[in-house]
Amino acid sequence: MQSLCKINGVYASAIAAGIKAKGLDLSYIYAPNAVASAGVFTTNQFKAACVKRNQSLFGDQVIKAIIVNSGNANAVTGEQGDQNNKKIAEYAAGKLGLSSFEVATASTGIIGRHLPMEKYLCGLDQLLHHPSRQEDELSVRAIMTTDTVEKAAYFETEVNGQVIKCAGIAKGSGMIAPNMATMLGFIVTNFPCTNQELQVCLTEACNYSFNLISVDGDTSTNDMVLAMAVPEAGIQNRPDSFIEFKKLLTQTCQSLSQQIIRDGEGATRLITIEISEASSYEAAKQIAMTVANSPLVKTAIHGADPNWGRILAAIGRSGVSIDPNLVNLSLQGCEVVRQGQPLAFDRNHLHQLLQSADVIVHITLGQGDHSIKAWGCDLSRGYVDINVEYN
Amino acid sequence: MQSLCKINGVYASAIAAGIKAKGLDLSYIYAPNAVASAGVFTTNQFKAACVKRNQSLFGDQVIKAIIVNSGNANAVTGEQGDQNNKKIAEYAAGKLGLSSFEVATASTGIIGRHLPMEKYLCGLDQLLHHPSRQEDELSVRAIMTTDTVEKAAYFETEVNGQVIKCAGIAKGSGMIAPNMATMLGFIVTNFPCTNQELQVCLTEACNYSFNLISVDGDTSTNDMVLAMAVPEAGIQNRPDSFIEFKKLLTQTCQSLSQQIIRDGEGATRLITIEISEASSYEAAKQIAMTVANSPLVKTAIHGADPNWGRILAAIGRSGVSIDPNLVNLSLQGCEVVRQGQPLAFDRNHLHQLLQSADVIVHITLGQGDHSIKAWGCDLSRGYVDINVEYN
Repeated sequence: MQSLCKINGVYASAIAAGIKAKGLDLSYIYAPNAVASAGVFTTNQFKAACVKRNQSLFGDQVIKAIIVNSGNANAVTGEQGDQNNKKIAEYAAGKLGLSSFEVATASTGIIGRHLPMEKYLCGLDQLLHHPSRQEDELSVRAIMTTDTVEKAAYFETEVNGQVIKCAGIAKGSGMIAPNMATMLGFIVTNFPCTNQELQVCLTEACNYSFNLISVDGDTSTNDMVLAMAVPEAGIQNRPDSFIEFKKLLTQTCQSLSQQIIRDGEGATRLITIEISEASSYEAAKQIAMTVANSPLVKTAIHGADPNWGRILAAIGRSGVSIDPNLVNLSLQGCEVVRQGQPLAFDRNHLHQLLQSADVIVHITLGQGDHSIKAWGCDLSRGYVDINVEYN
Repeated sequence: MQSLCKINGVYASAIAAGIKAKGLDLSYIYAPNAVASAGVFTTNQFKAACVKRNQSLFGDQVIKAIIVNSGNANAVTGEQGDQNNKKIAEYAAGKLGLSSFEVATASTGIIGRHLPMEKYLCGLDQLLHHPSRQEDELSVRAIMTTDTVEKAAYFETEVNGQVIKCAGIAKGSGMIAPNMATMLGFIVTNFPCTNQELQVCLTEACNYSFNLISVDGDTSTNDMVLAMAVPEAGIQNRPDSFIEFKKLLTQTCQSLSQQIIRDGEGATRLITIEISEASSYEAAKQIAMTVANSPLVKTAIHGADPNWGRILAAIGRSGVSIDPNLVNLSLQGCEVVRQGQPLAFDRNHLHQLLQSADVIVHITLGQGDHSIKAWGCDLSRGYVDINVEYN
């Protein structure tokens, strides 16, 4: 499935460099004509070397290439980890004829081990020998760790006869997978804009997508979403097209986010948590994520159990001040609590409705006019099996 | 095993009143000579009827009896739930010759269903007919829901020839068990003190025990710990004995807390998380509980996997500001991270050490002089199996 390379002037490929025991593990995304770039990074205080360096680049610089490895997170690796990461960027920049500050890096894999630098640099020699490849289907596979399916998205929209395009790839199935770290997302567009504009749009898109998902509540040391704008002739940045681009970017990020949750470790159901009438975005998010992360809610939904008391208990402990007597709750469209009072409902019917790959939890707070949708997954024995294994 | 009734003048018993499908479900603790009482309650905003009413009693009143049922939480049951709860207290008070504000209530079980009042009141007739029973071994069983073992503690200490005693019982194995709610703890002592003194001691004891444990991070709507002081002739409240009493109460609460965690749903290991050199109690608690609740840390420890990156990732996302370069981490006494840098260690040896029923995680933050111990358990397929079932 083509994604990134549907944007003209975006190149990508990958090889097996031996960083992982087997399979593709080293890839690039290269956009020599990029005019803007933006990034959103993990809030974890133990930041990987790549996250720290990237954070210093985005803002003034325009990133034109991203080098990504799987199999090793290069996180909690101290000074040597920082130097290794810097060396990779410089080496790749040299190969591509770019300045080193035009090259971002991303790593995903086990925490606390040093990168195998010899293999890595040999790999870059091979990978970047002919960098104008359009093999994004290899890149999307090379960034996978415990992912069981590839995650890619492509959307386009027409504004005044111009086709604005947005494409992205992502990885992640646990916030930290077994011995591994990270959620990564890489987005490209043909929409012409400045770094600042792209950053504003990416931050907002992430707030309504990647920042509203959870497999297990664990935030990795390496999470990042990077975006590059590679303008195409004829596409103009005007107020109406800018608004459409922002929507397109959010749609792309939401699609990738949902693909990650559907592939959550051990997950069998995608849970959409809709919050209405919250006093703020932050309040809505905090309640949604508390529900999404509650092991008791997640196991109940795995069992298709209409045990709504667990959802109310999660709302009540979220830390957000609520009025219990204003709360309504519906599961799969079936109202079970109104104004904080229990309603009679057909338990067996609702049990059947909950046996779906898509479960919708709708919570109304009666406190304001903010609405969001967040996404989580159920908790199964499969999650435990994946994460328990000593290796 | 005798516990509560080792304190002179404390009576307890239980019956099967039919609130649960089978087994003991209605019990009392009665201390007609109590001179002080104190309570600590859930912070969940959806509070059960019993929690709301009890909170209005503690402070000025001295509670002399506690009526407890399992099988029904009487939470999210609206106005009718409040009235039912009040009626129970009044009815029991009449039977015991007490004022209704001397009677506390506690309920544990499914959320959102009304109490079977007829059975309940008939049960009270039978239960309180001869209230001077010393059958605390029945009470400790009657408060169990998914608990697999009874939880009771008794400690004594001698100060100036006086034996100060503290006894307690508790229930809980998930913060919310399958379809059930609550952690309950009931403590009695022969130490003479005022309501205020007992409240101060109980609050502090809970801060270093019940408030530092987690099975799954879910806070129930019914949690409470109640304490009553029933003075014994010859025991004096003096500065030295007061300090000893405070220690004894904390010890009792810690013992009950650890019993709850060891019986955590699906748990196979008790994890003690020791935090040193934190800037405050709150900072230490927040980091400890983030580690204790991380599904990835819990599954790794279930697999005896020395995957310390998951612990650092949890510390880094806890919300507490830390300096990654000052953090030390040991597992089972084996140092794996010093000053934020990874250390070489024998993975297979540590894997063997981690295959213990007791796992100790020690985190040093280098930011201050606050230390705490918190307790959690591992996450196994058993937890999922217990909580997934539709019923």
